[in-house]
Amino acid sequence: MNYAFMKRLSDYSAMAESAIRNLDLSSDKFDALYSPVAYGMQAGGKRLRPTLLLMTADAFGNCPDKAIDPAVGIEMFHNFTLLHDDVMDKSDTRRGRPTVHSKWDENTAILSGDTMLTLATKKIAEVEDAILRPVLDTFNDQALRVYEGQRLDMDFENMTEVDLDSYIEMIKLKTGALLGASAKIGALIGGASLEDAEKMYEFGMMLGMAFQIEDDYLDTFGNADTFGKPIGGDINNNKKTFLLVKAIATAGSNAEALKAAMKMPAGATKVKTVTRIYETMGMPSVSKAEVAAYSSKALAAIKKTSLSDERREAFRKLIDKLINRSK
Amino acid sequence: MNYAFMKRLSDYSAMAESAIRNLDLSSDKFDALYSPVAYGMQAGGKRLRPTLLLMTADAFGNCPDKAIDPAVGIEMFHNFTLLHDDVMDKSDTRRGRPTVHSKWDENTAILSGDTMLTLATKKIAEVEDAILRPVLDTFNDQALRVYEGQRLDMDFENMTEVDLDSYIEMIKLKTGALLGASAKIGALIGGASLEDAEKMYEFGMMLGMAFQIEDDYLDTFGNADTFGKPIGGDINNNKKTFLLVKAIATAGSNAEALKAAMKMPAGATKVKTVTRIYETMGMPSVSKAEVAAYSSKALAAIKKTSLSDERREAFRKLIDKLINRSK
Repeated sequence: MNYAFMKRLSDYSAMAESAIRNLDLSSDKFDALYSPVAYGMQAGGKRLRPTLLLMTADAFGNCPDKAIDPAVGIEMFHNFTLLHDDVMDKSDTRRGRPTVHSKWDENTAILSGDTMLTLATKKIAEVEDAILRPVLDTFNDQALRVYEGQRLDMDFENMTEVDLDSYIEMIKLKTGALLGASAKIGALIGGASLEDAEKMYEFGMMLGMAFQIEDDYLDTFGNADTFGKPIGGDINNNKKTFLLVKAIATAGSNAEALKAAMKMPAGATKVKTVTRIYETMGMPSVSKAEVAAYSSKALAAIKKTSLSDERREAFRKLIDKLINRSK
Repeated sequence: MNYAFMKRLSDYSAMAESAIRNLDLSSDKFDALYSPVAYGMQAGGKRLRPTLLLMTADAFGNCPDKAIDPAVGIEMFHNFTLLHDDVMDKSDTRRGRPTVHSKWDENTAILSGDTMLTLATKKIAEVEDAILRPVLDTFNDQALRVYEGQRLDMDFENMTEVDLDSYIEMIKLKTGALLGASAKIGALIGGASLEDAEKMYEFGMMLGMAFQIEDDYLDTFGNADTFGKPIGGDINNNKKTFLLVKAIATAGSNAEALKAAMKMPAGATKVKTVTRIYETMGMPSVSKAEVAAYSSKALAAIKKTSLSDERREAFRKLIDKLINRSK
């Protein structure tokens, strides 16, 4: 099959979605092990990570087809982390469906999650021998970063205050590293030089941070109809998001009101109260500025690669799409 | 460093133990993530899997030194499975120490377990480029077999009867595959042909099955002073061990008594009653015969390799040691 270079963003995500839908995880004997894996993969979502991996392989080597197995692998890794995170957070639903541990049970979620991690590693390894080692190293190292980020995030729950540097470190690890690795692995498959592959890692990392801060913003200021989960969940959980951490750091005369609001029981009144404080403090524009700053850094990383202007365009569009999204 | 060929068994296990002791898992920032990993690795035990990996590398290539990182990796994988199994089984102690989830908490056990799996994969990949792919494939495939075996074992808990074939399938997957992979990876590192490496997989698999059936035997008929855990735990949990599955399949006139004993509440009387039924049925010798049969198969696999008689000797000694052990 021949793929034309520079497909539209939606073509890459459709390609990822189709490969994921065609995954054969059926098993006569071990259905109880592999069904939850298939269920975890069918969660839908933006398929951002495999899309980024495919488009990077195409930008450097006109070869998204060679990248399809690793693209599925990177999404499988992502879904593995969601599956285990949901157990740790005791979340009963995700994207409107019961989570694996609530549909089956916790032991199934642990074991089928482990299975997903190994299956993901196998998919990632579906590359030419010449790049197996750098691809595998990139994948394993990002995995450790993700666990470190999740560990920090868990530790934050028991802290009343988190400083901004720690928050930034956490999202770098928990969200940035996987997007960085997606872009880097795509670049390696596309035949990019190691220098270009590192620049693409930087791109993915900065994109990931813009993406996460936008996600934090949408959880409070998004549109309930399109966001896909109830607005204000982070506020109700006193979750250390960019909004909260930044607001605490710069609260000034709003400090007492914010502290009092955090102590309120979860509910619509709490969400309204905290949202109003954020608005008074101008947090929406502070947040948007932060997203724009990371987007600029992402763009700067792309400009340092050897990619032509024409080939950079798809990445610029991806940034635009992610920071102007409603879900 | 130069290693002489055909070291004593105890030299290989000491080599593994020392490499594990020297693992640097300290982390200033992520101590909460990596300390439980270090704790999980310090559990001691026989270090059977890395010992087998090292001795196979030495038998084929006089190079246990080249195999040391993968040997640590295979033990780390094993300890990762124990860590997650302990969460699933809600076991509070292992080898006389609190388990990770009881010393820390369940979320820590899940996340640090995931970390161990990725760290294990990294260690396994510390081989020459030329054999990276077969070594990685062998490792990942055995991992899937282990999860399948654990899934079966969990399913057995909800079944009143398990047939012997299913039990054999379960231990093949849960115990055999990892020992098979340990031997095969050692052989690949030692430069063995693919044929010889496959024979070594067969050896490890058969050794693992002999080992597991012996383990089941010792849980009932072992010596409490040397076995390291209370005798009769399997009986108290109605665990589907070789003894129980085989006894149910061949109970004849003892069927009613066995069924009644299984319904007794856990305690010394139950252990005594079931043990007596096993003795009446001659289960100790039936069990020993089964161990001997798998040991013979292991020996037969070794004889099919190109190894000299002299080099086979260490493997024969390993079999002898494992089936005549008290712990």
